[in-house]
Amino acid sequence: MDKRNLTLLCDFYEITMANGYFLCGKQNQIAYFDVFFRDIPDGGGFAIAAGLGQIVDYIKNLRFGESDIEYLRSMNIFNDEFLEYLRDFRFSGDIYAVPEGTPIFPREPVITVKAPVMEAQFIETFILTAFNHQSLIATKANRIARAADGRAVSEFGARRAQGADAALLGARAAYIGGVNSTSCTLSAKDYDIPASGTMAHSWVQMFDSEYEAFKTYCELYPDNATLLIDTYNVIKSGVPNAIKAFRECGIEKCAVRIDSGDIAYLTKKVRKMLDDAGLPNCKIVVSNSLDEKIIADILRQGAKIDAFGVGERLITAKSHPVFGGVYKLAAIEDENGNIIPKIKISENHEKITNPHFKKLYRLFRKSDGRAIADYITLYNEDLDKNAPLELFDPIFTWKHQTVTDFEAVELMKPIFIGGELVYETPKLSEIRAYCEAQVATLWEEVRRFENPHRYYVDLSKQLWDLKQSLLAHNF
Amino acid sequence: MDKRNLTLLCDFYEITMANGYFLCGKQNQIAYFDVFFRDIPDGGGFAIAAGLGQIVDYIKNLRFGESDIEYLRSMNIFNDEFLEYLRDFRFSGDIYAVPEGTPIFPREPVITVKAPVMEAQFIETFILTAFNHQSLIATKANRIARAADGRAVSEFGARRAQGADAALLGARAAYIGGVNSTSCTLSAKDYDIPASGTMAHSWVQMFDSEYEAFKTYCELYPDNATLLIDTYNVIKSGVPNAIKAFRECGIEKCAVRIDSGDIAYLTKKVRKMLDDAGLPNCKIVVSNSLDEKIIADILRQGAKIDAFGVGERLITAKSHPVFGGVYKLAAIEDENGNIIPKIKISENHEKITNPHFKKLYRLFRKSDGRAIADYITLYNEDLDKNAPLELFDPIFTWKHQTVTDFEAVELMKPIFIGGELVYETPKLSEIRAYCEAQVATLWEEVRRFENPHRYYVDLSKQLWDLKQSLLAHNF
Repeated sequence: MDKRNLTLLCDFYEITMANGYFLCGKQNQIAYFDVFFRDIPDGGGFAIAAGLGQIVDYIKNLRFGESDIEYLRSMNIFNDEFLEYLRDFRFSGDIYAVPEGTPIFPREPVITVKAPVMEAQFIETFILTAFNHQSLIATKANRIARAADGRAVSEFGARRAQGADAALLGARAAYIGGVNSTSCTLSAKDYDIPASGTMAHSWVQMFDSEYEAFKTYCELYPDNATLLIDTYNVIKSGVPNAIKAFRECGIEKCAVRIDSGDIAYLTKKVRKMLDDAGLPNCKIVVSNSLDEKIIADILRQGAKIDAFGVGERLITAKSHPVFGGVYKLAAIEDENGNIIPKIKISENHEKITNPHFKKLYRLFRKSDGRAIADYITLYNEDLDKNAPLELFDPIFTWKHQTVTDFEAVELMKPIFIGGELVYETPKLSEIRAYCEAQVATLWEEVRRFENPHRYYVDLSKQLWDLKQSLLAHNF
Repeated sequence: MDKRNLTLLCDFYEITMANGYFLCGKQNQIAYFDVFFRDIPDGGGFAIAAGLGQIVDYIKNLRFGESDIEYLRSMNIFNDEFLEYLRDFRFSGDIYAVPEGTPIFPREPVITVKAPVMEAQFIETFILTAFNHQSLIATKANRIARAADGRAVSEFGARRAQGADAALLGARAAYIGGVNSTSCTLSAKDYDIPASGTMAHSWVQMFDSEYEAFKTYCELYPDNATLLIDTYNVIKSGVPNAIKAFRECGIEKCAVRIDSGDIAYLTKKVRKMLDDAGLPNCKIVVSNSLDEKIIADILRQGAKIDAFGVGERLITAKSHPVFGGVYKLAAIEDENGNIIPKIKISENHEKITNPHFKKLYRLFRKSDGRAIADYITLYNEDLDKNAPLELFDPIFTWKHQTVTDFEAVELMKPIFIGGELVYETPKLSEIRAYCEAQVATLWEEVRRFENPHRYYVDLSKQLWDLKQSLLAHNF
């Protein structure tokens, strides 16, 4: 779909390091990298993973074109054999990842790459760009959709998006997170998202009167007439003209949109005017710099709203516009295939990585399907799903609980094995439904917008012991 | 360069309105739209215009493909003749715009589109997406580059960008705004920006020791050895190992990079250690969630820094991630070619538009080239550049001044005339140099980061009178 060759969408140091690994004979050494994040945007209780679809496309299409190689050659710092080697550069390793739409938590691996270090290192930037961007927007959209409390939300942000991809893939991510439609036509077409849209103020201004603009629109779109009623004055002219146009055209399935002013006040007034005019089925759509906080607030105040259009604060995740996913070395293999765990230490314990090749489980209570905790183990540990499991906080280790009667689901799925794609990206509507179902497994307390309960992400005893021994050795 | 067909990167309502204009016979009525913005990000004194390069590409390549038309047909709401008409849809109008890199101010027209309303309306979304995104990043980059006070700044943000375009075009915009290089290889290649990059922590971790990692890198890149010294401990191991590696390889043109910790404290200490080791020319590069405020702060504290790497806070304009450019109807033509001015009113005077087809001048003082004010006139007014000019504040009309000895430069240039591209986009390095020179014409007080002096944007008496009469008529 995307015909650009994005292979070089990498940080320049990926290439200088690749050249270095090539020249010092390390290029085929196997390395394991984890993608994880540290902070949940907006102080929420969880994030939503997204972007894997574009990561798959990137890895599949990874190819250095002639112009790429010539560009690198022109810099006069790369080895000729290395540049020739790039001609046949492909990804030959393994990638495991949580499916898009999965609720994810800080410091757990959500993507693991196992590959010759040159390849594993090279794909860092694109993986992070795609994962960070779409997870950011899916997470924000999920908050907004939940705040709307069952009312439809349309993504309206293309004009304020940070570039074309931010509009296109932002709409994709927003749909995963739970919005119902997008105003971005190309995104609707390419990703099979319902398209929505009404009219601009300029439509109203193009006619001699507001009424004429409304009536013309109703005649053109009798099955889908949403009239923008705030070009002049919502109460004095917008609603009366809309009612008149709906009546003259005999339209009952209709809507009005308000894009300015005090939404709580206006919608109550507009609702009453529409009801009094015998239009109880006329819906009220609102827009204008909305986000989950404003939506929750105006609904609490009794605003009469059927649907929301949400623009800049969704498409840029304005209140927290960065998703801080990182890509960290977790292990390497020696020449005999032994896995040597690696740890990145820091004065700040939150920044210390979890070493080694790992598995990530989500534990669900069998009785009601609720998510209890996530549980990270070494790759070769056996998890006895029938025995009681002792969980303990990896920092405050005296906090512990014993879990019984649980189902353990491994969250990361094989995506590429030996360079072959082994995963079929689900349809976007399936990803969206999966996301909704998975969010529903979280406790209310974790889903709370402000000061949510911290969900447990625990390490197995073996992994915890390994981490402590590496810390003792390195500090 | 961009092989995607982005024609449908438009809000869906642009197409429903286009179909409407087509069906009610208005499609060829000439309309004038202005792009302007209302608020300067981060409370600054000016913004930097950018994105015109991509707008030009979009307009040139505007074409509905077969799959676009089939997609629209499948929705069963569009007229068949309209869909056929889209096959030959091209932009046939005029576009005027300020060149990229121009400092711009609230409420002045920076792009004006004159075209049959269907065309003028259709291109709204893409124009705003490109203009808003790149102006946002160029504006932020200009603040950061000015805070760095002559030190080099590299854009490092691809991995935290909101999608691929945000990385690629964000780097382009950042370069316009004044940063010196980018770590995004594809952007460096496509837009001819210097590429920069050092090494990741994983490079250091891939070797048996930090020293071995450093020495290997110095041997590989003796002319460009920048060593990342904070993987373990900057003072205890990073600097000593770097000094040892530089010495063993006989390297004097070198640098160290610090990506964590207290930058002010560490750089002073590191500078002394390097100097004491006989490496006074070894540069110190710092990164880690920097922006103009942190940069100014640590420089005030005497940090010893030669260059900055700036990532997420630049590439997302984190502190203010939305540039609120809008696209508003300013006039239409009747069947006789008379221009009928249009105004969008609002309770909020800041949101009232400036009507009619207009010209934008910047007045420079002849004696020293300083920018005095911007001045908006009707399209057919003559500005007598030799007579004294009376300026007055459009709201507080008693505030006035008489300007003499000025040069008036028309800021908007013809870009498309009659659908033909008449503008050659300058080379990016030229745009960057133009930006720097234009910013230098602004008073210090306007360039201040906090509470800058408000630059004057005034209306001609004729335009002001017209606006008042339209307001009186509409309110």
